[in-house]
Amino acid sequence: MSKPLIRVALIGQGFMGRAHSNAYRQAPHFFDLPYDLDCRLLCGRNRDVLEKTAATWGWSEISTDWRAAVARSDIDLVDIAVPNALHAPIALAAAEAGKMVLCEKPLATSAEEAVRMAEAARGVPNFVWFNYRRVPAVALCRRFIDEGRIGRVFHYRATYLQEWGNDPTRPPGWKTQRAEAGSGVLGDLLSHLVDTALWLNGPIREVCSLLETFATGRDVDDAVMLLARFANGSIGTFEATRYAVGYTNCNAFTIHGEGGMLRFNLEEMNWLEYAEAAAPRERRGIVRVPVANPSFWKPGHPIGYEHTFIAALADFLFGLSRGEAAHPTFEDGRETAGVLDAAARAAAARAWVPVTI
Amino acid sequence: MSKPLIRVALIGQGFMGRAHSNAYRQAPHFFDLPYDLDCRLLCGRNRDVLEKTAATWGWSEISTDWRAAVARSDIDLVDIAVPNALHAPIALAAAEAGKMVLCEKPLATSAEEAVRMAEAARGVPNFVWFNYRRVPAVALCRRFIDEGRIGRVFHYRATYLQEWGNDPTRPPGWKTQRAEAGSGVLGDLLSHLVDTALWLNGPIREVCSLLETFATGRDVDDAVMLLARFANGSIGTFEATRYAVGYTNCNAFTIHGEGGMLRFNLEEMNWLEYAEAAAPRERRGIVRVPVANPSFWKPGHPIGYEHTFIAALADFLFGLSRGEAAHPTFEDGRETAGVLDAAARAAAARAWVPVTI
Amino acid sequence: MSKPLIRVALIGQGFMGRAHSNAYRQAPHFFDLPYDLDCRLLCGRNRDVLEKTAATWGWSEISTDWRAAVARSDIDLVDIAVPNALHAPIALAAAEAGKMVLCEKPLATSAEEAVRMAEAARGVPNFVWFNYRRVPAVALCRRFIDEGRIGRVFHYRATYLQEWGNDPTRPPGWKTQRAEAGSGVLGDLLSHLVDTALWLNGPIREVCSLLETFATGRDVDDAVMLLARFANGSIGTFEATRYAVGYTNCNAFTIHGEGGMLRFNLEEMNWLEYAEAAAPRERRGIVRVPVANPSFWKPGHPIGYEHTFIAALADFLFGLSRGEAAHPTFEDGRETAGVLDAAARAAAARAWVPVTI
Amino acid sequence: MSKPLIRVALIGQGFMGRAHSNAYRQAPHFFDLPYDLDCRLLCGRNRDVLEKTAATWGWSEISTDWRAAVARSDIDLVDIAVPNALHAPIALAAAEAGKMVLCEKPLATSAEEAVRMAEAARGVPNFVWFNYRRVPAVALCRRFIDEGRIGRVFHYRATYLQEWGNDPTRPPGWKTQRAEAGSGVLGDLLSHLVDTALWLNGPIREVCSLLETFATGRDVDDAVMLLARFANGSIGTFEATRYAVGYTNCNAFTIHGEGGMLRFNLEEMNWLEYAEAAAPRERRGIVRVPVANPSFWKPGHPIGYEHTFIAALADFLFGLSRGEAAHPTFEDGRETAGVLDAAARAAAARAWVPVTI
Repeated sequence: MSKPLIRVALIGQGFMGRAHSNAYRQAPHFFDLPYDLDCRLLCGRNRDVLEKTAATWGWSEISTDWRAAVARSDIDLVDIAVPNALHAPIALAAAEAGKMVLCEKPLATSAEEAVRMAEAARGVPNFVWFNYRRVPAVALCRRFIDEGRIGRVFHYRATYLQEWGNDPTRPPGWKTQRAEAGSGVLGDLLSHLVDTALWLNGPIREVCSLLETFATGRDVDDAVMLLARFANGSIGTFEATRYAVGYTNCNAFTIHGEGGMLRFNLEEMNWLEYAEAAAPRERRGIVRVPVANPSFWKPGHPIGYEHTFIAALADFLFGLSRGEAAHPTFEDGRETAGVLDAAARAAAARAWVPVTI
Repeated sequence: MSKPLIRVALIGQGFMGRAHSNAYRQAPHFFDLPYDLDCRLLCGRNRDVLEKTAATWGWSEISTDWRAAVARSDIDLVDIAVPNALHAPIALAAAEAGKMVLCEKPLATSAEEAVRMAEAARGVPNFVWFNYRRVPAVALCRRFIDEGRIGRVFHYRATYLQEWGNDPTRPPGWKTQRAEAGSGVLGDLLSHLVDTALWLNGPIREVCSLLETFATGRDVDDAVMLLARFANGSIGTFEATRYAVGYTNCNAFTIHGEGGMLRFNLEEMNWLEYAEAAAPRERRGIVRVPVANPSFWKPGHPIGYEHTFIAALADFLFGLSRGEAAHPTFEDGRETAGVLDAAARAAAARAWVPVTI
Repeated sequence: MSKPLIRVALIGQGFMGRAHSNAYRQAPHFFDLPYDLDCRLLCGRNRDVLEKTAATWGWSEISTDWRAAVARSDIDLVDIAVPNALHAPIALAAAEAGKMVLCEKPLATSAEEAVRMAEAARGVPNFVWFNYRRVPAVALCRRFIDEGRIGRVFHYRATYLQEWGNDPTRPPGWKTQRAEAGSGVLGDLLSHLVDTALWLNGPIREVCSLLETFATGRDVDDAVMLLARFANGSIGTFEATRYAVGYTNCNAFTIHGEGGMLRFNLEEMNWLEYAEAAAPRERRGIVRVPVANPSFWKPGHPIGYEHTFIAALADFLFGLSRGEAAHPTFEDGRETAGVLDAAARAAAARAWVPVTI
Repeated sequence: MSKPLIRVALIGQGFMGRAHSNAYRQAPHFFDLPYDLDCRLLCGRNRDVLEKTAATWGWSEISTDWRAAVARSDIDLVDIAVPNALHAPIALAAAEAGKMVLCEKPLATSAEEAVRMAEAARGVPNFVWFNYRRVPAVALCRRFIDEGRIGRVFHYRATYLQEWGNDPTRPPGWKTQRAEAGSGVLGDLLSHLVDTALWLNGPIREVCSLLETFATGRDVDDAVMLLARFANGSIGTFEATRYAVGYTNCNAFTIHGEGGMLRFNLEEMNWLEYAEAAAPRERRGIVRVPVANPSFWKPGHPIGYEHTFIAALADFLFGLSRGEAAHPTFEDGRETAGVLDAAARAAAARAWVPVTI
């Protein structure tokens, strides 16, 4: 009995294009998906690279014209993995053409764009690749919260620490140019922290912040620090930076609640740290729990970065077959964009501002 | 050849009174001090406890009248280890009486008080017990900074995490009452973070912040979050709380600079973590360095909380003999009070404010 | 320009069959291999499962007759991923048929078998899947050793700690039956430790040991402890067990030499710990170095268990194209089998015995 | 009401003499002892150093003649903190003179000596300074075991890792000379591991081992590795070395049992790690529990090396007042000496040998 087919056009062939290609190839190996996937079309700017990438990952066709790609009648799903400034035009076109739309994070380069994209995508299945929601340990956090293990939350604390901003030998790229990226760490790193926070701890009501550019002549933010008040009464600090010398890619958060604590660090992505407030004093402490996704390998056999994309794609497809939206949707992406927008406004105003979008 | 004698009156017999008593007893064991110490007088509110504490720690006399104690001609040094609201009156009286004055942290309950105390103490040797400056690993941070290993600083990040606010079985004490403590975590915990920050990273120019009280009916702050701009161009986050479920007493900071990273955590107080930005990629990472103060025991033989007080007292006395002020002085304590003052004003103003005191 | 084709028959469809299937699918995605791979035939005992597994991973044909499979003229490479007792018969048949032979670890159920297999395979490209040699951090250890960073070695210490032996709910499997597995932790876990040790620290001359079975009625060893003298003068301890409550899959080793220390733990497989003996005292400690294989993802983006198989396959194929054997070969597997043999003899003799095979 | 007086003679003024002096000074500060302590006499070889040490720590008299000291009628307790070869003659003389005897570890330089000492001391209160039994976390291990949290033990694993053997700049001392030390790491480090193991896991029945001297021309062992069978059916590995480059003073052990795991490391002496086998899978892991001795400071305020001596002395005195022997006694020290003896015999025999003393 054959499964319904989904014909995919992937726009983008950089680092993210590779991560997505891998997801399309690997999801059927680890999950009994409700659909067959047809890697139909890979779209990018550089034809030479495109041919090689398509051959490596098994994309049937290539194109350097995303507008044509999005318009093709033999494409069911458009996946956007290009620099941020192109997210909105491609997503709007794809949604208008009635395609399912998957979009890399951050959803947009501004809250206004995000609002338009979320509206446009209402009629089609959509998804934003905030991949870290699919780290098994992060998902277990959400489960513990839902089970009431944390209870009333007091503190949320998140940091995304990278150091490459301090590396003078690193060649420039689109991520440090406002025209292509829209922002610096705000969209690149803080967006991840905010997406996870909104998922685990609910809406943010107001923020104050500071944006800083350390490099000379750069037109995007190299670092951002944020204080926040959540709707549930908890308070939070966020920090994202490319100048955290000592850290390669440390995406970490801690939640302190009446019932316990949760702590995660992408550097140890196969582990969750948990403290139970009610444990007897002599056995109370932080438990380091190994967390696995049994769809991949047995417990004790670590998974890596790429598995978050594979699991995200699987969730999207399972949701699709049940008629349910997998999170995070464009609507969720819009909410994150609203917090980023408030962060930028607060920095400019040098004061607390409400989240309004 | 006998050494000059210093006759000490210790005001306070609580937890801090014990820590100071221990310092007077132990400093001569581990350091060849330039003075003999005479533990002359222990002063406190409760006579029964006072007798027992004096007997245990070898204080020659006791008194329940600090004013009389401070006025005695046979006292050279007044050490203040009582609830915060009494710091100023005792210190002012002691300074006026020409005594050396050592004062527990925070120096005062307000910046105004701190200013008056710093002025009054100008003519006498003085010192504030921000004991964590004497953790060997913290002192090594300062040395690395002075040696230029960190260079231009980008980020300073500090947290002081305790959980006892969430413990419903804990009996109330003076630390949660404004009349005695002046503030909550602001003076109790944030003051430690700020003192260390000012010492290691220089003055703070402006801050924004949030103060929160989680407990019902409490008139002091249970948590504070702070963003800061330092005079050296670096930016910082500070968080202090009594609601960090999972942590007993986690006083930690990280400094990221052009040349490297420094990281310290009181929970691992015999270690310093250091990353060197210029190390070759395949050997670059965070080094965990065991740090000892050889005046105590050999490397690998951990010291504890109390040794920070012993080393602080020794430094004060060595400084005294050389005619140099040991840090932190009342002037340093005043500077910290100025930052705490700005933190409170910023929280009220819901905006960035300059540090003015 | 097309590449030469290698037609693969994989014998085995359990956990290891999946890990190998994944390697065949993924190696071409991450490496520009010198060969095209044809996943021609999947061979196993259970036809129903076989069909499903073949469909999932894209094997063209299935078979339940490994003898026929190995004899087929349209197969170039036989990959053995079945219970240990079948390794020898399949490998001998495959080698006799002139096929390339890849074999799961341990190579054999006895040293005698291993000797015969190594002899038989001399004329064909061969390889043993001791996958952990391809952990980037383990490979970096070898590089540091080759560069002379460790110098004269004093100590080698390795543990492989699992806890599932203590889990009464776990269903029995072939790994605890002598008829299928040949041994317990000796072949299953100690073999990994020994393979890594021989690679990093050279031959073992003599051992003493203890084998223990904790479970009632089990005919294989649940735990083994080993003392060893290496040819290079260093001494070592090895311990492998399924009764290490608290650990899921902790494969770890430490090497102490005149020049420094190396430490690895599979639980943190993206990191290597290194200490440099000559570092200045105040910066000397254990450095935690993030280690990546750039063929997969960027530094800071963790890889997992499966990537060790992918990289091993790629190394085998690159070696093949250059006419060089990728390590570990059957000859290396035989050397490990010789140490396991000595371990069993020493346990029986209750005395030190030389490694003789 | 005055307490009975104990007049102490301390023989030894080196590192251990300091640690003991500190214990006599500090025990009355932290414990309400049943005795008053009179630091009457400090005995050592070098009169100049002796005067200074006595002055620093408040010993009333000094002497360079331990025989005379032990014979004095105004001495109640003789504390032995000299190189190992002198333990037996002093302890035997002191016991014969009817004094209480406290002796540094290892109790003796041979099992025969230890037997004689244990016999001689039967009539007098006696104690061996295996100080690490008083680390609060180690004591908590014993409590968890007594409470049945570990149940049937499978594995005991202990390492004592130092690196100073590899330091060519280190001046020679008595610890590397057989005439004074009796042995190398056997008595110095392995004795600590064995004492803790016997206390926590009961008697050892048989051992095999390896002793190694890495330094040229040294007549004591630099490293020892030991396999052991305990009377309770568990099996153990022990390793002690002065050539573990990377570690200053890592005294660590792990116990795996049916009910859970316990792990301790002196490098993190204020913490115990515990795993509960029966915890639900998604919350099962290793808990890091902060452990304090409330006689010293509040939880979260670390104690250090010296506190183990203070607590040991207090335990001895409390036991004395109740007519109970505080552990470890000379009899316990003899048992440890018996295991060390077996370790040396096993190394010589190159085979398993029973513990016979």
